[in-house]
Amino acid sequence: MTNASSAVLDTAALLAAELADAAGEVIRRYFRQSVEIIDKDDASPVTIADREAETAMRRLITRHFPEHGVLGEEHGPDRIDAEWVWVLDPIDGTKSFISGVPLFGTLVALLHQGRPVLGVLDQPISRERWIGGQGRPTLFNGQPVRTRACADLARAAIFSTTPAMFDAVDRPRFDAIADAAKLVRFGADCYAYGLVASGFVDAVIEGSLKPYDYCAHVPIIEGAGGIVTDFQGRTPGLGSDGRIIAAGDPALHALLVERLN
Amino acid sequence: MTNASSAVLDTAALLAAELADAAGEVIRRYFRQSVEIIDKDDASPVTIADREAETAMRRLITRHFPEHGVLGEEHGPDRIDAEWVWVLDPIDGTKSFISGVPLFGTLVALLHQGRPVLGVLDQPISRERWIGGQGRPTLFNGQPVRTRACADLARAAIFSTTPAMFDAVDRPRFDAIADAAKLVRFGADCYAYGLVASGFVDAVIEGSLKPYDYCAHVPIIEGAGGIVTDFQGRTPGLGSDGRIIAAGDPALHALLVERLN
Repeated sequence: MTNASSAVLDTAALLAAELADAAGEVIRRYFRQSVEIIDKDDASPVTIADREAETAMRRLITRHFPEHGVLGEEHGPDRIDAEWVWVLDPIDGTKSFISGVPLFGTLVALLHQGRPVLGVLDQPISRERWIGGQGRPTLFNGQPVRTRACADLARAAIFSTTPAMFDAVDRPRFDAIADAAKLVRFGADCYAYGLVASGFVDAVIEGSLKPYDYCAHVPIIEGAGGIVTDFQGRTPGLGSDGRIIAAGDPALHALLVERLN
Repeated sequence: MTNASSAVLDTAALLAAELADAAGEVIRRYFRQSVEIIDKDDASPVTIADREAETAMRRLITRHFPEHGVLGEEHGPDRIDAEWVWVLDPIDGTKSFISGVPLFGTLVALLHQGRPVLGVLDQPISRERWIGGQGRPTLFNGQPVRTRACADLARAAIFSTTPAMFDAVDRPRFDAIADAAKLVRFGADCYAYGLVASGFVDAVIEGSLKPYDYCAHVPIIEGAGGIVTDFQGRTPGLGSDGRIIAAGDPALHALLVERLN
Protein backbone atom coordinates (compact mmCIF):
# COMPACT_ATOMS: atom_id res chain seq x y z
CA MET A 1 0.00 0.00 0.00
CA THR A 2 1.40 3.44 -1.00
CA ASN A 3 1.71 6.36 1.43
CA ALA A 4 -1.28 7.99 -0.28
CA SER A 5 -3.36 4.85 0.20
CA SER A 6 -2.26 4.57 3.80
CA ALA A 7 -3.44 8.16 4.39
CA VAL A 8 -6.85 7.27 2.95
CA LEU A 9 -6.98 4.28 5.28
CA ASP A 10 -6.29 6.49 8.31
CA THR A 11 -9.18 8.80 7.45
CA ALA A 12 -11.39 5.88 6.49
CA ALA A 13 -10.87 4.24 9.89
CA LEU A 14 -12.31 7.32 11.59
CA LEU A 15 -15.20 7.41 9.14
CA ALA A 16 -15.90 3.69 9.63
CA ALA A 17 -16.39 4.29 13.35
CA GLU A 18 -18.78 7.16 12.52
CA LEU A 19 -20.74 4.86 10.20
CA ALA A 20 -21.14 2.30 12.97
CA ASP A 21 -22.22 5.05 15.37
CA ALA A 22 -24.84 6.26 12.88
CA ALA A 23 -26.16 2.76 12.26
CA GLY A 24 -26.25 2.01 15.98
CA GLU A 25 -28.37 5.07 16.70
CA VAL A 26 -30.99 3.87 14.23
CA ILE A 27 -30.83 0.24 15.33
CA ARG A 28 -31.18 0.92 19.05
CA ARG A 29 -34.43 2.80 18.34
CA TYR A 30 -35.94 -0.27 16.67
CA PHE A 31 -34.53 -3.19 18.70
CA ARG A 32 -37.31 -5.08 20.51
CA GLN A 33 -39.95 -2.72 19.16
CA SER A 34 -42.80 -3.79 16.92
CA VAL A 35 -41.41 -3.25 13.43
CA GLU A 36 -43.21 -4.13 10.24
CA ILE A 37 -41.29 -7.01 8.73
CA ILE A 38 -40.90 -6.90 4.97
CA ASP A 39 -40.02 -10.14 3.23
CA LYS A 40 -37.66 -9.75 0.29
CA ASP A 41 -37.52 -12.13 -2.65
CA ASP A 42 -35.14 -14.40 -0.75
CA ALA A 43 -37.61 -14.50 2.19
CA SER A 44 -35.06 -13.16 4.66
CA PRO A 45 -36.59 -10.70 7.10
CA VAL A 46 -35.52 -7.15 6.49
CA THR A 47 -36.55 -4.44 8.83
CA ILE A 48 -37.05 -0.75 8.46
CA ALA A 49 -34.10 -0.33 10.79
CA ASP A 50 -31.84 -2.09 8.28
CA ARG A 51 -32.79 0.30 5.49
CA GLU A 52 -32.63 3.46 7.56
CA ALA A 53 -29.24 2.51 8.97
CA GLU A 54 -27.79 1.87 5.51
CA THR A 55 -29.15 5.17 4.22
CA ALA A 56 -27.47 6.98 7.12
CA MET A 57 -24.14 5.26 6.40
CA ARG A 58 -24.27 5.91 2.65
CA ARG A 59 -24.95 9.60 3.28
CA LEU A 60 -21.77 9.87 5.38
CA ILE A 61 -19.65 8.01 2.81
CA THR A 62 -20.87 10.21 -0.04
CA ARG A 63 -20.07 13.31 1.97
CA HIS A 64 -16.49 12.26 2.82
CA PHE A 65 -15.49 10.08 -0.14
CA PRO A 66 -17.80 10.82 -3.08
CA GLU A 67 -15.47 8.92 -5.45
CA HIS A 68 -15.58 5.66 -3.45
CA GLY A 69 -17.82 2.77 -4.45
CA VAL A 70 -20.45 1.32 -2.10
CA LEU A 71 -22.03 -2.12 -1.92
CA GLY A 72 -24.79 -2.43 0.64
CA GLU A 73 -27.13 -5.26 1.53
CA GLU A 74 -30.21 -3.07 1.26
CA HIS A 75 -29.58 -0.60 -1.55
CA GLY A 76 -27.33 -2.61 -3.87
CA PRO A 77 -24.06 -1.75 -5.72
CA ASP A 78 -22.79 1.70 -6.64
CA ARG A 79 -19.42 2.17 -8.52
CA ILE A 80 -18.03 -1.13 -7.22
CA ASP A 81 -15.23 -0.97 -9.82
CA ALA A 82 -13.73 2.01 -7.92
CA GLU A 83 -10.27 1.77 -6.28
CA TRP A 84 -11.93 1.95 -2.85
CA VAL A 85 -15.24 0.23 -2.19
CA TRP A 86 -17.23 0.26 1.05
CA VAL A 87 -19.21 -2.87 1.84
CA LEU A 88 -22.05 -2.41 4.31
CA ASP A 89 -24.35 -4.69 6.26
CA PRO A 90 -26.33 -2.53 8.67
CA ILE A 91 -27.81 -5.54 10.47
CA ASP A 92 -25.95 -8.80 9.95
CA GLY A 93 -28.14 -11.35 11.69
CA THR A 94 -31.61 -9.98 10.98
CA LYS A 95 -33.13 -13.19 12.35
CA SER A 96 -31.44 -12.52 15.68
CA PHE A 97 -32.49 -8.87 15.53
CA ILE A 98 -36.18 -9.61 15.04
CA SER A 99 -36.06 -12.33 17.71
CA GLY A 100 -34.59 -9.95 20.29
CA VAL A 101 -31.16 -11.65 20.44
CA PRO A 102 -28.32 -9.11 20.79
CA LEU A 103 -25.78 -11.04 18.71
CA PHE A 104 -26.49 -9.28 15.39
CA GLY A 105 -24.07 -6.59 14.31
CA THR A 106 -23.35 -3.75 11.95
CA LEU A 107 -20.59 -4.69 9.51
CA VAL A 108 -18.53 -2.09 7.66
CA ALA A 109 -15.66 -3.04 5.35
CA LEU A 110 -13.46 -1.04 3.03
CA LEU A 111 -11.85 -2.79 0.06
CA HIS A 112 -8.76 -1.42 -1.69
CA GLN A 113 -8.32 -2.78 -5.19
CA GLY A 114 -10.60 -5.64 -4.24
CA ARG A 115 -8.96 -6.62 -0.95
CA PRO A 116 -10.61 -5.95 2.44
CA VAL A 117 -8.24 -3.58 4.29
CA LEU A 118 -10.52 -2.14 6.98
CA GLY A 119 -13.33 -3.73 8.98
CA VAL A 120 -15.70 -2.79 11.78
CA LEU A 121 -17.98 -5.20 13.65
CA ASP A 122 -20.29 -3.31 15.99
CA GLN A 123 -22.87 -4.70 18.41
CA PRO A 124 -25.00 -1.65 19.18
CA ILE A 125 -26.94 -3.05 22.16
CA SER A 126 -24.00 -4.31 24.23
CA ARG A 127 -21.89 -1.52 22.70
CA GLU A 128 -19.07 -3.85 21.73
CA ARG A 129 -16.94 -2.89 18.73
CA TRP A 130 -14.09 -4.62 16.94
CA ILE A 131 -12.09 -2.60 14.42
CA GLY A 132 -9.29 -3.95 12.26
CA GLY A 133 -7.12 -2.32 9.60
CA GLN A 134 -4.35 -3.70 7.43
CA GLY A 135 -1.02 -3.45 9.24
CA ARG A 136 -2.60 -2.40 12.56
CA PRO A 137 -3.53 -4.35 15.68
CA THR A 138 -7.24 -5.11 15.93
CA LEU A 139 -8.98 -3.21 18.71
CA PHE A 140 -11.97 -4.30 20.82
CA ASN A 141 -13.55 -1.25 22.44
CA GLY A 142 -10.20 0.48 22.02
CA GLN A 143 -8.02 -2.31 23.45
CA PRO A 144 -5.81 -4.61 21.32
CA VAL A 145 -7.00 -8.22 21.12
CA ARG A 146 -5.26 -11.41 19.95
CA THR A 147 -6.57 -14.74 18.72
CA ARG A 148 -5.61 -17.79 20.80
CA ALA A 149 -3.36 -20.64 19.77
CA CYS A 150 -5.27 -23.84 18.94
CA ALA A 151 -3.82 -26.06 16.24
CA ASP A 152 -5.73 -29.16 17.36
CA LEU A 153 -9.32 -29.69 16.15
CA ALA A 154 -10.06 -31.87 19.20
CA ARG A 155 -9.47 -28.80 21.39
CA ALA A 156 -11.23 -26.30 19.12
CA ALA A 157 -14.47 -24.32 19.63
CA ILE A 158 -16.15 -24.02 16.21
CA PHE A 159 -19.06 -21.70 15.43
CA SER A 160 -21.46 -21.48 12.49
CA THR A 161 -24.77 -19.71 12.01
CA THR A 162 -26.68 -22.89 11.13
CA PRO A 163 -25.87 -26.30 9.64
CA ALA A 164 -28.57 -25.54 7.05
CA MET A 165 -26.28 -23.03 5.33
CA PHE A 166 -24.13 -25.74 3.73
CA ASP A 167 -24.86 -27.49 0.43
CA ALA A 168 -25.03 -31.26 -0.01
CA VAL A 169 -21.28 -31.55 -0.66
CA ASP A 170 -20.12 -29.34 2.21
CA ARG A 171 -22.61 -30.51 4.83
CA PRO A 172 -21.08 -33.94 5.55
CA ARG A 173 -17.61 -32.36 5.62
CA PHE A 174 -18.79 -29.77 8.12
CA ASP A 175 -20.53 -32.46 10.18
CA ALA A 176 -17.32 -34.51 10.33
CA ILE A 177 -15.40 -31.46 11.54
CA ALA A 178 -18.12 -30.75 14.11
CA ASP A 179 -17.93 -34.32 15.38
CA ALA A 180 -14.16 -34.02 15.84
CA ALA A 181 -14.20 -30.58 17.50
CA LYS A 182 -14.32 -29.99 21.25
CA LEU A 183 -17.33 -27.69 21.02
CA VAL A 184 -19.72 -26.59 18.27
CA ARG A 185 -22.17 -23.71 18.58
CA PHE A 186 -24.72 -22.29 16.16
CA GLY A 187 -26.52 -19.00 15.89
CA ALA A 188 -23.97 -16.35 16.87
CA ASP A 189 -23.97 -14.54 13.49
CA CYS A 190 -21.12 -12.05 12.98
CA TYR A 191 -20.49 -11.93 16.72
CA ALA A 192 -18.71 -15.29 16.45
CA TYR A 193 -16.00 -13.70 14.27
CA GLY A 194 -15.40 -11.05 16.92
CA LEU A 195 -14.98 -13.85 19.46
CA VAL A 196 -12.34 -15.43 17.19
CA ALA A 197 -10.45 -12.12 17.14
CA SER A 198 -10.71 -11.90 20.93
CA GLY A 199 -9.44 -15.44 21.46
CA PHE A 200 -12.59 -17.12 22.86
CA VAL A 201 -13.59 -19.07 19.73
CA ASP A 202 -11.17 -20.94 17.46
CA ALA A 203 -12.93 -20.98 14.10
CA VAL A 204 -16.07 -20.02 12.20
CA ILE A 205 -17.09 -22.06 9.15
CA GLU A 206 -19.98 -20.81 7.03
CA GLY A 207 -21.57 -21.18 3.62
CA SER A 208 -24.02 -19.16 1.52
CA LEU A 209 -22.55 -15.82 2.63
CA LYS A 210 -22.58 -12.55 0.70
CA PRO A 211 -19.62 -10.11 0.53
CA TYR A 212 -21.23 -7.83 3.11
CA ASP A 213 -21.40 -10.83 5.50
CA TYR A 214 -17.64 -11.57 5.49
CA CYS A 215 -15.48 -8.71 4.13
CA ALA A 216 -15.28 -6.84 7.47
CA HIS A 217 -14.02 -9.95 9.25
CA VAL A 218 -10.86 -10.26 7.11
CA PRO A 219 -8.91 -7.26 8.52
CA ILE A 220 -10.42 -7.74 12.00
CA ILE A 221 -9.21 -11.32 12.34
CA GLU A 222 -5.93 -10.81 10.45
CA GLY A 223 -5.07 -7.87 12.73
CA ALA A 224 -5.57 -10.14 15.74
CA GLY A 225 -3.28 -12.90 14.41
CA GLY A 226 -5.79 -15.09 12.59
CA ILE A 227 -6.83 -15.72 9.01
CA VAL A 228 -10.02 -15.58 6.93
CA THR A 229 -10.29 -17.24 3.52
CA ASP A 230 -12.65 -19.02 1.20
CA PHE A 231 -12.67 -22.84 1.20
CA GLN A 232 -9.74 -22.76 -1.28
CA GLY A 233 -7.58 -20.72 1.07
CA ARG A 234 -7.84 -17.44 -0.86
CA THR A 235 -8.53 -14.05 0.72
CA PRO A 236 -12.20 -13.40 -0.03
CA GLY A 237 -13.36 -10.31 -1.90
CA LEU A 238 -16.49 -9.30 -3.81
CA GLY A 239 -16.27 -12.27 -6.18
CA SER A 240 -15.99 -15.10 -3.65
CA ASP A 241 -18.46 -17.96 -3.58
CA GLY A 242 -19.58 -17.25 -0.01
CA ARG A 243 -18.01 -20.28 1.68
CA ILE A 244 -15.79 -18.90 4.44
CA ILE A 245 -13.30 -20.25 7.00
CA ALA A 246 -12.10 -17.92 9.75
CA ALA A 247 -9.60 -19.24 12.27
CA GLY A 248 -7.58 -17.76 15.08
CA ASP A 249 -4.64 -20.13 14.61
CA PRO A 250 -3.25 -20.41 11.04
CA ALA A 251 -2.39 -24.06 11.71
CA LEU A 252 -6.02 -24.86 12.51
CA HIS A 253 -7.05 -22.91 9.43
CA ALA A 254 -4.81 -25.04 7.20
CA LEU A 255 -6.28 -28.20 8.72
CA LEU A 256 -9.85 -26.96 8.12
CA VAL A 257 -9.12 -26.03 4.48
CA GLU A 258 -7.84 -29.56 3.97
CA ARG A 259 -10.87 -31.16 5.64
CA LEU A 260 -13.32 -29.05 3.64
CA ASN A 261 -11.84 -30.12 0.28
CA MET B 1 -51.91 -23.12 47.23
CA THR B 2 -52.75 -22.32 50.90
CA ASN B 3 -52.22 -18.92 52.51
CA ALA B 4 -49.21 -20.31 54.35
CA SER B 5 -47.70 -21.57 51.09
CA SER B 6 -48.41 -18.25 49.44
CA ALA B 7 -46.50 -16.48 52.22
CA VAL B 8 -43.51 -18.79 51.67
CA LEU B 9 -43.67 -17.95 47.98
CA ASP B 10 -43.57 -14.20 48.72
CA THR B 11 -40.42 -14.57 50.81
CA ALA B 12 -38.92 -17.04 48.37
CA ALA B 13 -39.33 -14.57 45.49
CA LEU B 14 -37.15 -12.06 47.34
CA LEU B 15 -34.60 -14.75 48.13
CA ALA B 16 -34.55 -15.96 44.51
CA ALA B 17 -33.53 -12.48 43.38
CA GLU B 18 -30.76 -12.50 46.00
CA LEU B 19 -29.55 -15.87 44.75
CA ALA B 20 -29.30 -14.53 41.21
CA ASP B 21 -27.46 -11.45 42.49
CA ALA B 22 -24.96 -13.66 44.34
CA ALA B 23 -24.40 -15.91 41.32
CA GLY B 24 -24.03 -12.90 39.03
CA GLU B 25 -21.29 -11.41 41.19
CA VAL B 26 -19.25 -14.61 40.88
CA ILE B 27 -19.97 -15.07 37.18
CA ARG B 28 -19.04 -11.52 36.14
CA ARG B 29 -15.62 -12.00 37.74
CA TYR B 30 -14.90 -15.02 35.52
CA PHE B 31 -16.59 -14.16 32.20
CA ARG B 32 -14.02 -13.82 29.38
CA GLN B 33 -11.16 -14.57 31.78
CA SER B 34 -8.85 -17.53 31.48
CA VAL B 35 -10.52 -20.17 33.62
CA GLU B 36 -9.31 -23.71 34.02
CA ILE B 37 -11.92 -25.85 32.31
CA ILE B 38 -12.72 -29.12 34.04
CA ASP B 39 -14.44 -31.79 31.99
CA LYS B 40 -17.01 -33.85 33.87
CA ASP B 41 -17.93 -37.41 33.00
CA ASP B 42 -20.42 -36.19 30.41
CA ALA B 43 -17.68 -34.08 28.79
CA SER B 44 -19.60 -30.84 29.25
CA PRO B 45 -17.37 -27.94 30.24
CA VAL B 46 -17.82 -26.84 33.80
CA THR B 47 -16.02 -23.85 35.12
CA ILE B 48 -14.89 -22.78 38.51
CA ALA B 49 -17.43 -19.97 38.22
CA ASP B 50 -20.25 -22.51 38.01
CA ARG B 51 -19.19 -24.20 41.24
CA GLU B 52 -18.52 -21.02 43.19
CA ALA B 53 -21.85 -19.53 42.14
CA GLU B 54 -23.77 -22.61 43.24
CA THR B 55 -21.98 -22.66 46.58
CA ALA B 56 -22.95 -19.03 47.14
CA MET B 57 -26.60 -19.75 46.31
CA ARG B 58 -26.79 -22.86 48.50
CA ARG B 59 -25.37 -20.93 51.44
CA LEU B 60 -28.18 -18.34 51.17
CA ILE B 61 -30.90 -21.00 50.87
CA THR B 62 -29.62 -22.87 53.92
CA ARG B 63 -29.58 -19.65 55.94
CA HIS B 64 -33.18 -18.66 55.02
CA PHE B 65 -34.91 -21.99 54.48
CA PRO B 66 -32.88 -24.77 56.15
CA GLU B 67 -35.79 -27.23 55.75
CA HIS B 68 -36.05 -26.79 51.94
CA GLY B 69 -34.51 -29.27 49.52
CA VAL B 70 -31.94 -28.28 46.91
CA LEU B 71 -31.03 -29.79 43.57
CA GLY B 72 -28.09 -28.15 41.85
CA GLU B 73 -26.23 -28.96 38.66
CA GLU B 74 -22.84 -28.89 40.36
CA HIS B 75 -23.34 -30.27 43.86
CA GLY B 76 -26.19 -32.74 43.33
CA PRO B 77 -29.44 -33.41 45.27
CA ASP B 78 -30.14 -32.60 48.92
CA ARG B 79 -33.53 -33.46 50.55
CA ILE B 80 -35.36 -33.39 47.20
CA ASP B 81 -38.38 -35.11 48.81
CA ALA B 82 -39.08 -31.92 50.82
CA GLU B 83 -42.29 -29.90 50.34
CA TRP B 84 -40.24 -27.08 48.82
CA VAL B 85 -37.25 -27.80 46.60
CA TRP B 86 -34.91 -25.27 44.99
CA VAL B 87 -33.47 -26.22 41.61
CA LEU B 88 -30.32 -24.34 40.62
CA ASP B 89 -28.27 -23.98 37.47
CA PRO B 90 -25.66 -21.32 38.12
CA ILE B 91 -24.56 -21.20 34.47
CA ASP B 92 -27.04 -22.64 32.01
CA GLY B 93 -25.18 -22.54 28.70
CA THR B 94 -21.62 -23.26 29.83
CA LYS B 95 -20.57 -23.64 26.18
CA SER B 96 -21.71 -20.07 25.54
CA PHE B 97 -20.02 -18.92 28.73
CA ILE B 98 -16.62 -20.37 27.85
CA SER B 99 -16.92 -19.05 24.27
CA GLY B 100 -17.62 -15.52 25.46
CA VAL B 101 -21.26 -15.43 24.28
CA PRO B 102 -23.50 -13.54 26.75
CA LEU B 103 -26.59 -15.72 26.24
CA PHE B 104 -25.96 -18.09 29.16
CA GLY B 105 -27.95 -17.50 32.31
CA THR B 106 -28.41 -18.31 35.97
CA LEU B 107 -31.57 -20.36 36.51
CA VAL B 108 -33.30 -20.57 39.87
CA ALA B 109 -36.54 -22.48 40.36
CA LEU B 110 -38.59 -23.32 43.43
CA LEU B 111 -40.85 -26.39 43.33
CA HIS B 112 -43.81 -26.81 45.67
CA GLN B 113 -44.92 -30.42 46.02
CA GLY B 114 -43.11 -31.17 42.79
CA ARG B 115 -44.51 -28.32 40.68
CA PRO B 116 -42.35 -25.33 39.61
CA VAL B 117 -44.02 -22.26 41.22
CA LEU B 118 -41.19 -19.69 41.07
CA GLY B 119 -38.53 -19.08 38.44
CA VAL B 120 -35.70 -16.64 37.80
CA LEU B 121 -33.70 -16.37 34.58
CA ASP B 122 -30.82 -13.95 34.97
CA GLN B 123 -28.26 -12.84 32.38
CA PRO B 124 -25.55 -11.31 34.53
CA ILE B 125 -23.55 -9.59 31.75
CA SER B 126 -26.39 -7.70 30.07
CA ARG B 127 -28.12 -7.53 33.49
CA GLU B 128 -31.43 -8.81 32.17
CA ARG B 129 -33.67 -10.69 34.58
CA TRP B 130 -36.99 -12.47 34.13
CA ILE B 131 -38.87 -13.52 37.26
CA GLY B 132 -42.10 -15.46 37.33
CA GLY B 133 -44.24 -16.78 40.18
CA GLN B 134 -47.47 -18.77 40.23
CA GLY B 135 -50.44 -16.42 40.06
CA ARG B 136 -48.32 -13.31 39.39
CA PRO B 137 -47.41 -11.51 36.18
CA THR B 138 -43.89 -12.28 34.95
CA LEU B 139 -41.49 -9.35 35.24
CA PHE B 140 -38.54 -8.47 33.00
CA ASN B 141 -36.24 -6.08 34.84
CA GLY B 142 -39.22 -5.12 36.95
CA GLN B 143 -41.71 -4.56 34.10
CA PRO B 144 -44.55 -6.98 33.24
CA VAL B 145 -44.09 -8.87 29.96
CA ARG B 146 -46.52 -10.87 27.82
CA THR B 147 -46.02 -13.58 25.22
CA ARG B 148 -47.28 -12.78 21.71
CA ALA B 149 -50.15 -14.44 19.86
CA CYS B 150 -48.98 -16.83 17.14
CA ALA B 151 -51.14 -19.88 16.49
CA ASP B 152 -49.71 -20.51 13.01
CA LEU B 153 -46.47 -22.48 12.61
CA ALA B 154 -45.78 -20.77 9.27
CA ARG B 155 -45.51 -17.46 11.15
CA ALA B 156 -43.59 -18.80 14.16
CA ALA B 157 -40.01 -18.16 15.30
CA ILE B 158 -38.72 -21.40 16.85
CA PHE B 159 -35.54 -21.70 18.91
CA SER B 160 -33.50 -24.68 20.09
CA THR B 161 -29.99 -25.03 21.47
CA THR B 162 -28.85 -27.46 18.79
CA PRO B 163 -30.45 -30.01 16.48
CA ALA B 164 -27.98 -32.53 17.93
CA MET B 165 -29.94 -32.63 21.21
CA PHE B 166 -32.75 -34.76 19.74
CA ASP B 167 -32.77 -38.54 19.51
CA ALA B 168 -33.36 -40.51 16.31
CA VAL B 169 -37.15 -40.48 16.77
CA ASP B 170 -37.52 -36.80 17.66
CA ARG B 171 -34.99 -35.41 15.19
CA PRO B 172 -37.05 -35.88 11.99
CA ARG B 173 -40.14 -34.52 13.78
CA PHE B 174 -38.18 -31.45 14.88
CA ASP B 175 -36.74 -31.04 11.37
CA ALA B 176 -40.25 -31.13 9.87
CA ILE B 177 -41.40 -28.45 12.32
CA ALA B 178 -38.31 -26.38 11.50
CA ASP B 179 -39.02 -26.66 7.78
CA ALA B 180 -42.58 -25.43 8.30
CA ALA B 181 -41.69 -22.54 10.65
CA LYS B 182 -41.04 -18.99 9.55
CA LEU B 183 -37.70 -18.83 11.35
CA VAL B 184 -35.47 -21.27 13.24
CA ARG B 185 -32.50 -20.30 15.37
CA PHE B 186 -30.04 -22.36 17.38
CA GLY B 187 -27.69 -21.58 20.22
CA ALA B 188 -29.57 -19.18 22.49
CA ASP B 189 -29.63 -21.44 25.59
CA CYS B 190 -32.00 -20.36 28.37
CA TYR B 191 -32.14 -16.84 26.93
CA ALA B 192 -34.55 -18.11 24.26
CA TYR B 193 -37.15 -18.91 26.95
CA GLY B 194 -36.92 -15.35 28.22
CA LEU B 195 -37.56 -14.14 24.69
CA VAL B 196 -40.69 -16.32 24.56
CA ALA B 197 -41.94 -14.65 27.78
CA SER B 198 -41.18 -11.23 26.30
CA GLY B 199 -43.03 -11.98 23.05
CA PHE B 200 -40.11 -12.00 20.58
CA VAL B 201 -39.86 -15.77 20.06
CA ASP B 202 -42.85 -18.10 19.68
CA ALA B 203 -41.53 -21.45 20.88
CA VAL B 204 -38.52 -23.34 22.17
CA ILE B 205 -38.26 -27.09 21.55
CA GLU B 206 -35.46 -29.02 23.22
CA GLY B 207 -34.38 -32.51 24.16
CA SER B 208 -31.88 -34.03 26.59
CA LEU B 209 -32.54 -31.40 29.29
CA LYS B 210 -32.14 -31.81 33.04
CA PRO B 211 -34.58 -30.41 35.65
CA TYR B 212 -32.27 -27.46 36.38
CA ASP B 213 -32.40 -26.59 32.64
CA TYR B 214 -36.19 -26.20 32.44
CA CYS B 215 -37.94 -25.84 35.85
CA ALA B 216 -37.38 -22.07 36.10
CA HIS B 217 -38.98 -21.49 32.70
CA VAL B 218 -42.37 -22.94 33.74
CA PRO B 219 -43.54 -20.09 36.03
CA ILE B 220 -41.74 -17.46 33.91
CA ILE B 221 -43.55 -18.39 30.71
CA GLU B 222 -46.87 -19.25 32.39
CA GLY B 223 -46.92 -15.88 34.12
CA ALA B 224 -46.49 -14.18 30.74
CA GLY B 225 -49.39 -16.05 29.12
CA GLY B 226 -47.57 -19.05 27.64
CA ILE B 227 -47.11 -22.71 28.51
CA VAL B 228 -44.21 -25.12 29.16
CA THR B 229 -44.67 -28.89 29.11
CA ASP B 230 -42.97 -32.12 28.24
CA PHE B 231 -43.68 -33.69 24.82
CA GLN B 232 -46.80 -35.34 26.31
CA GLY B 233 -48.24 -31.98 27.34
CA ARG B 234 -47.62 -32.43 31.10
CA THR B 235 -46.12 -29.75 33.37
CA PRO B 236 -42.51 -30.85 33.84
CA GLY B 237 -41.01 -31.49 37.27
CA LEU B 238 -38.00 -33.37 38.63
CA GLY B 239 -39.07 -36.65 37.02
CA SER B 240 -39.56 -35.49 33.43
CA ASP B 241 -37.69 -37.06 30.54
CA GLY B 242 -36.03 -33.79 29.51
CA ARG B 243 -37.94 -33.21 26.26
CA ILE B 244 -39.52 -29.76 26.57
CA ILE B 245 -41.88 -27.55 24.54
CA ALA B 246 -42.30 -23.93 25.58
CA ALA B 247 -44.66 -21.73 23.62
CA GLY B 248 -46.05 -18.25 23.96
CA ASP B 249 -49.40 -19.08 22.41
CA PRO B 250 -51.24 -22.13 23.87
CA ALA B 251 -52.70 -22.87 20.42
CA LEU B 252 -49.19 -23.15 18.91
CA HIS B 253 -48.19 -25.30 21.88
CA ALA B 254 -51.05 -27.73 21.19
CA LEU B 255 -50.03 -27.94 17.55
CA LEU B 256 -46.39 -28.65 18.47
CA VAL B 257 -47.36 -31.38 20.95
CA GLU B 258 -49.32 -33.04 18.17
CA ARG B 259 -46.46 -32.77 15.65
CA LEU B 260 -43.92 -34.16 18.12
CA ASN B 261 -45.96 -37.30 18.78
